[in-house]
Amino acid sequence: MSNYQDIKVQAYQANMQLPKLGLVLFTFGNVSAVDRAKGVFAIKPSGVPYEDLSPDDMVIVDFDSNVVEGRLRPSSDTKTHAVLYKHWEDIGGIVHTHSTYGTAWAQAQKAIPIFGTTHADHLTVDIPCAPPMADEMIKGNYEYETGFQIMNHFENLGLSYKEVEMILVGNHAPFTWGKTAEKAVYNSAVLETVAQMALLTQQINPQAPKLKDSLIKKHFERKHGEGAYYGQK
Amino acid sequence: MSNYQDIKVQAYQANMQLPKLGLVLFTFGNVSAVDRAKGVFAIKPSGVPYEDLSPDDMVIVDFDSNVVEGRLRPSSDTKTHAVLYKHWEDIGGIVHTHSTYGTAWAQAQKAIPIFGTTHADHLTVDIPCAPPMADEMIKGNYEYETGFQIMNHFENLGLSYKEVEMILVGNHAPFTWGKTAEKAVYNSAVLETVAQMALLTQQINPQAPKLKDSLIKKHFERKHGEGAYYGQK
Amino acid sequence: MSNYQDIKVQAYQANMQLPKLGLVLFTFGNVSAVDRAKGVFAIKPSGVPYEDLSPDDMVIVDFDSNVVEGRLRPSSDTKTHAVLYKHWEDIGGIVHTHSTYGTAWAQAQKAIPIFGTTHADHLTVDIPCAPPMADEMIKGNYEYETGFQIMNHFENLGLSYKEVEMILVGNHAPFTWGKTAEKAVYNSAVLETVAQMALLTQQINPQAPKLKDSLIKKHFERKHGEGAYYGQK
Amino acid sequence: MSNYQDIKVQAYQANMQLPKLGLVLFTFGNVSAVDRAKGVFAIKPSGVPYEDLSPDDMVIVDFDSNVVEGRLRPSSDTKTHAVLYKHWEDIGGIVHTHSTYGTAWAQAQKAIPIFGTTHADHLTVDIPCAPPMADEMIKGNYEYETGFQIMNHFENLGLSYKEVEMILVGNHAPFTWGKTAEKAVYNSAVLETVAQMALLTQQINPQAPKLKDSLIKKHFERKHGEGAYYGQK
Repeated sequence: MSNYQDIKVQAYQANMQLPKLGLVLFTFGNVSAVDRAKGVFAIKPSGVPYEDLSPDDMVIVDFDSNVVEGRLRPSSDTKTHAVLYKHWEDIGGIVHTHSTYGTAWAQAQKAIPIFGTTHADHLTVDIPCAPPMADEMIKGNYEYETGFQIMNHFENLGLSYKEVEMILVGNHAPFTWGKTAEKAVYNSAVLETVAQMALLTQQINPQAPKLKDSLIKKHFERKHGEGAYYGQK
Repeated sequence: MSNYQDIKVQAYQANMQLPKLGLVLFTFGNVSAVDRAKGVFAIKPSGVPYEDLSPDDMVIVDFDSNVVEGRLRPSSDTKTHAVLYKHWEDIGGIVHTHSTYGTAWAQAQKAIPIFGTTHADHLTVDIPCAPPMADEMIKGNYEYETGFQIMNHFENLGLSYKEVEMILVGNHAPFTWGKTAEKAVYNSAVLETVAQMALLTQQINPQAPKLKDSLIKKHFERKHGEGAYYGQK
Repeated sequence: MSNYQDIKVQAYQANMQLPKLGLVLFTFGNVSAVDRAKGVFAIKPSGVPYEDLSPDDMVIVDFDSNVVEGRLRPSSDTKTHAVLYKHWEDIGGIVHTHSTYGTAWAQAQKAIPIFGTTHADHLTVDIPCAPPMADEMIKGNYEYETGFQIMNHFENLGLSYKEVEMILVGNHAPFTWGKTAEKAVYNSAVLETVAQMALLTQQINPQAPKLKDSLIKKHFERKHGEGAYYGQK
Repeated sequence: MSNYQDIKVQAYQANMQLPKLGLVLFTFGNVSAVDRAKGVFAIKPSGVPYEDLSPDDMVIVDFDSNVVEGRLRPSSDTKTHAVLYKHWEDIGGIVHTHSTYGTAWAQAQKAIPIFGTTHADHLTVDIPCAPPMADEMIKGNYEYETGFQIMNHFENLGLSYKEVEMILVGNHAPFTWGKTAEKAVYNSAVLETVAQMALLTQQINPQAPKLKDSLIKKHFERKHGEGAYYGQK
């Protein structure tokens, strides 16, 4: 049995949630799960249909994108995952999808406005949208640079990856992360439903105001603050 | 066996309808069922996935929000349910969801206009949308105040909770109720489909007129008046 | 065994297609099937959930809306069916639903424009939308008058019920019919998908032109003309 | 056993993917698979429900639209398939559907703008929309002429059918193709999701810019260029 069995199973199970949650068509998505002690992560192989996957198909990669174990080629987005794991040291899992509404906001190059408590239950700011990359970054080491594009946008906005666990990459699609791969998948589904609700909100009322500060604070703290009282202890 | 077995089963079964009807993502919703004789209600525990629920997980709470029986922490929205049960004495069940279209109207801070007979079969007025709460109410006993926000809006509009069994809370999401928990869930599904139809109606015809009085009256009375002839006797 | 077993089974099977095709929520729809020789039709009982239905629950009604056989109360829309069967002598089945997109067009009081071949495969004109009824008709024998509202609108537009097997009733919802109950259900599904495509077409291009005559003629005749070559002989 | 068993099975399996992928209502679609050595293709019979199909029902047709083997009448769109196989010699499979969003763009007579990487992963230009045909072509050999309408539009735009494997036919619906029938079905699903995302993108941001050249090139080459690194070798 592999030394990396735990994260292979975690990554496998989290990947299998994507089609179940309606977040992917064909192979348009990938999830990874990290083992911080060993300095590696397990990620979906590239272009393999979800129905054919098994835990053993997961590819083990280090934070410099070297394949450590695995018969298959890792996801084409592997370098983006590696960069984020290397620099954001508390992330346990990462998800990339082309989910319909999230991708539409990314293509529109618009951050998703915070219109309601469904959004505020998970983050206190608009879901950020990084601008499309500069041409030299695209022509160069594209997926590696995508990781920096994400981190730079967080830095420019003064955001913490521990508080905001999702982003849109302009013209491309969403990335989400979390303490675990499972939480990162949860965040992908939240992003998709919030993205749909936000578009519908603007269609119903083009002048819809953003959520006011007191409600943002209340809802986020119900779930995440010191005195959080959502869920079981 | 619990003294509250009946309402535990009712609340459990009604909660399990929410994912089946497509009204919730993850744990974004809750249903309660009341026992008026005993002065308590059974409500979903907070943050527990629907697929893991059993009737025994339901939490028994009194109308002042004290937990009477249960191993788990009750829904974070429990105080809203308690307030409504205490003051609206004919309610048998309450539902809260973040269903997609209903939530979008709430985020848009717009009542849902009565455009057709699907709406009039269930209520004779626009589905009301309570304004977002004042900051001091939000910072204070938020979920408790949400109950009063709902009741105050009904009073301001001169509505009866017996005739109008649903409301949007501005920036938040829908609440519905009914004689039973099952009926309250039914109302949540009706609200969601009416919310979608109303948006589509406005998209097809921005000048769409509201339903005229004679049709409102006819359809409501088919189902609810003295001479109602819809359904079995 | 009932003398009307055949139409009971036909009506039952056609009714069960409605939830399968996503055309109804709860009990918001009904199908009937006629026996012309016996001068009666079988129709869904009012307000009974689809999952509880059996062929024996179907109610047998004559063309003057008298119940001939059946333990249950017939659909509240029974009189509309009776009027149409009485006056349109080649109809074998009738369907009424509150399907989402069809109902939105009805609420918008707009005929559905003929934008493409999916529409022209089934009818050569816009899907008509009858205006809401006059107040005295609504207050009187409402469901009976609904039948005349449908027939009058066809007469005003010079349409034949044999060529156009569907209509929207303004502020209400779609009715469809056909040589059999099964065909009427098929038409309901066609109406719903054409209704969705037409709205999307206008959203993509508010100046989208209607389908030109040569294409309307060609597509309709492929399926319905003398030299029809769609389907098996 | 038939001499054409291989393509019958391929066509059958590819056809059965259409309802599974949500691309067809009833019989509104067809797939064919070619045998270049024998100069024939297998295609769905006309108007037969998917649930009733078996591989033996597939009809074998040559490139001049003559039926070579089969008990049933071939799809009414057979001549379009025949023309494309005859002239585009590297095509292995063809699909025609009336999928909802793709058809809406066709009805709107608009090419689908390239807004993001989901699109660029598959083709580097807008998804073309051929104009509706001239009246004499429609009145004449309609389905045969549809093939030429498709090829002429590609020629006018300077496109290669090997690089762009999909088109909308104005007022009608999408056609896609590929090296195999399976790939052609894949392309139909890609077209449908890209069509939905493009409409949503314009609704979120009516001024959304198209994808820039560097990103178009990068994403297409990840999957299709000399140094492609998507998928397994």
